Amino acid sequence: MKGLVFHGPGRSAWEDVPDPGVQEATDAIVRVGAVTICGTDLHILQGDVPEVRPGRVLGHEAVGEVVEVGGAVRTVRPGDRVLVSCISACGRCRYCREGMYGQCRGGGGWILGHLIDGTQAEYVRVPYADLSVHLLPGTVSSEDAVLLADILPTAYEVGVLKGRVRPGDTVAVVGAGPIGLAAIATARLFAPERIVAVDLAAPRLEAARRLGADAVADAREAPEQLIGDLTGGLGADVVIEAVGVPESFELCTRMVRPGGRVANVGVHGRPAALHLEDLWSRNITITTGLVDTHSTPTLLRMVAAGRLPTPQLITHTFPLERMEEAYEVFSRAADTGALKVVLGGQRHEVVPAGAV
Amino acid sequence: MKGLVFHGPGRSAWEDVPDPGVQEATDAIVRVGAVTICGTDLHILQGDVPEVRPGRVLGHEAVGEVVEVGGAVRTVRPGDRVLVSCISACGRCRYCREGMYGQCRGGGGWILGHLIDGTQAEYVRVPYADLSVHLLPGTVSSEDAVLLADILPTAYEVGVLKGRVRPGDTVAVVGAGPIGLAAIATARLFAPERIVAVDLAAPRLEAARRLGADAVADAREAPEQLIGDLTGGLGADVVIEAVGVPESFELCTRMVRPGGRVANVGVHGRPAALHLEDLWSRNITITTGLVDTHSTPTLLRMVAAGRLPTPQLITHTFPLERMEEAYEVFSRAADTGALKVVLGGQRHEVVPAGAV
Repeated sequence: MKGLVFHGPGRSAWEDVPDPGVQEATDAIVRVGAVTICGTDLHILQGDVPEVRPGRVLGHEAVGEVVEVGGAVRTVRPGDRVLVSCISACGRCRYCREGMYGQCRGGGGWILGHLIDGTQAEYVRVPYADLSVHLLPGTVSSEDAVLLADILPTAYEVGVLKGRVRPGDTVAVVGAGPIGLAAIATARLFAPERIVAVDLAAPRLEAARRLGADAVADAREAPEQLIGDLTGGLGADVVIEAVGVPESFELCTRMVRPGGRVANVGVHGRPAALHLEDLWSRNITITTGLVDTHSTPTLLRMVAAGRLPTPQLITHTFPLERMEEAYEVFSRAADTGALKVVLGGQRHEVVPAGAV
Repeated sequence: MKGLVFHGPGRSAWEDVPDPGVQEATDAIVRVGAVTICGTDLHILQGDVPEVRPGRVLGHEAVGEVVEVGGAVRTVRPGDRVLVSCISACGRCRYCREGMYGQCRGGGGWILGHLIDGTQAEYVRVPYADLSVHLLPGTVSSEDAVLLADILPTAYEVGVLKGRVRPGDTVAVVGAGPIGLAAIATARLFAPERIVAVDLAAPRLEAARRLGADAVADAREAPEQLIGDLTGGLGADVVIEAVGVPESFELCTRMVRPGGRVANVGVHGRPAALHLEDLWSRNITITTGLVDTHSTPTLLRMVAAGRLPTPQLITHTFPLERMEEAYEVFSRAADTGALKVVLGGQRHEVVPAGAV
């Protein structure tokens, strides 16, 4: 089969690799129908994730058809159309028993396209299939469904739920890329008073408005001032960090009110300064997290019911074999306007960014 | 009357000051019977709390007798024996309505010995008396009660409750001074599997054992290793920071397990490094806080019932007029072995540290 193979920092290729087969009784083999590229994949290509070894097939998000299952798999069978989640879960370890599947100690967690071969290929082996794939109703398109593999549950669980967004809250979302936009869309479900989006790029702030932001601010123009003006000088109840650099995290801690929450979603490569000399007395809660995907079944029902604006998050689609071109478009998002790019799926033609 | 007056960094004196009087209808005037010195008072003397102006009477913890009340005070009257809490509360602002009295926006919060004259004097004016003093039962000694003004609710609310200590948890407490020891004593109420105390000073680690620590570690000898050994390599469920320097905070973030909580209680003067490059994916919760004292009535019942080892936290007692000597003993804790020093109260003689 073909797959997108990592060959060390800066190098990858869509090339021939061996077909995967069932290795454990709990495995499923899925023929990939739709797949997307994650910001984390770009981090891997930059060499920021050293545990990803050369030769690895990348990708941790897919929709496809089950073609083979191991003898212990009970919830899916060949022919089923499934979502392949970015998180695999043994279901038996302490963390899985508490629903914290992202921290699975039994060989799951984020392994696809990381510690084992991933989804950016024609076929993928999914370990622990019973807890790691989700049956898809026919009413949900593959394009919509593939967003449930990572970005929707990540934004919702690590941003909105950990930030404990409540009715009447002022919510600031720093970073209006796909994750920040998904956080805006899912924060709306909790009836906040207002959502303020912060980014450097005007097109992303426009997308934030379309996804439900009530106000937007340029990150270079003291957005903490705007938040203060909107809240009687208090600050935001919840601030969601969706960038992953020290400057944006530190901005979040300046925007939060006493008693408020900062939910970090961004993938960071460097330490940030935590200004405890200001924060020690302010009853702040800071959370971090990898997605657990415990919310995926709920979000899938919401997408099926048309309650989440998934189509607005997708700017480009490609056939699977144009993987390298899709990476190129996604990695130059500032020029191409790319949010999520989807390969495969029901639309196989390039859709211009202006369609958002 | 006499009071301990701050005269700028490094200078203070027990000297004549005007008697306080009722200024607002919600005030009470309390004749101070017992008072203690807080680590925060030492910070003020070092010049670390610039909003404390020269001329201010210090102190935010006391037990005494109400001698006068304003016309709007309903819950106490002259002759009542009361605890003066470190936190005053207007009771009407958004924060007070949510029980977050430490963040009071109506003129309360931590004001005694900070923004108005405090308790280290013969008399003190307490604003918002209805919500800022607590009637004391005759069965609770003044020495025990004065620990309820700050350190017991601070350790309990900001450490144990924000850290969400649960049965079976491994709890690490970094810093075994009075706050850390009070955190150990109140963490025990939640039946943790074990409490590990970390400090630099052997006598404090011995005190930690007496207060209920199951294991102790020298902060210089890689305590994260001990925690790892005790927890199968995972880390502590809850880590309580009770020092207030960047190094100890950063140690806490190395000791916590994935999915665990770091509750910062320490008063910090400098930023710490937050290693988001490690922590972003680990489902960590970090909390900060000033005490709200919402737990004070509960803790008072626990002390009255003999359920908290308050006497073990007091190493020295003095008559009120030996305030300067008490400061001297408390500020040289490494030499004197001082934990809490109490002035006034039922015992007016110096008790040697060995009595702990």
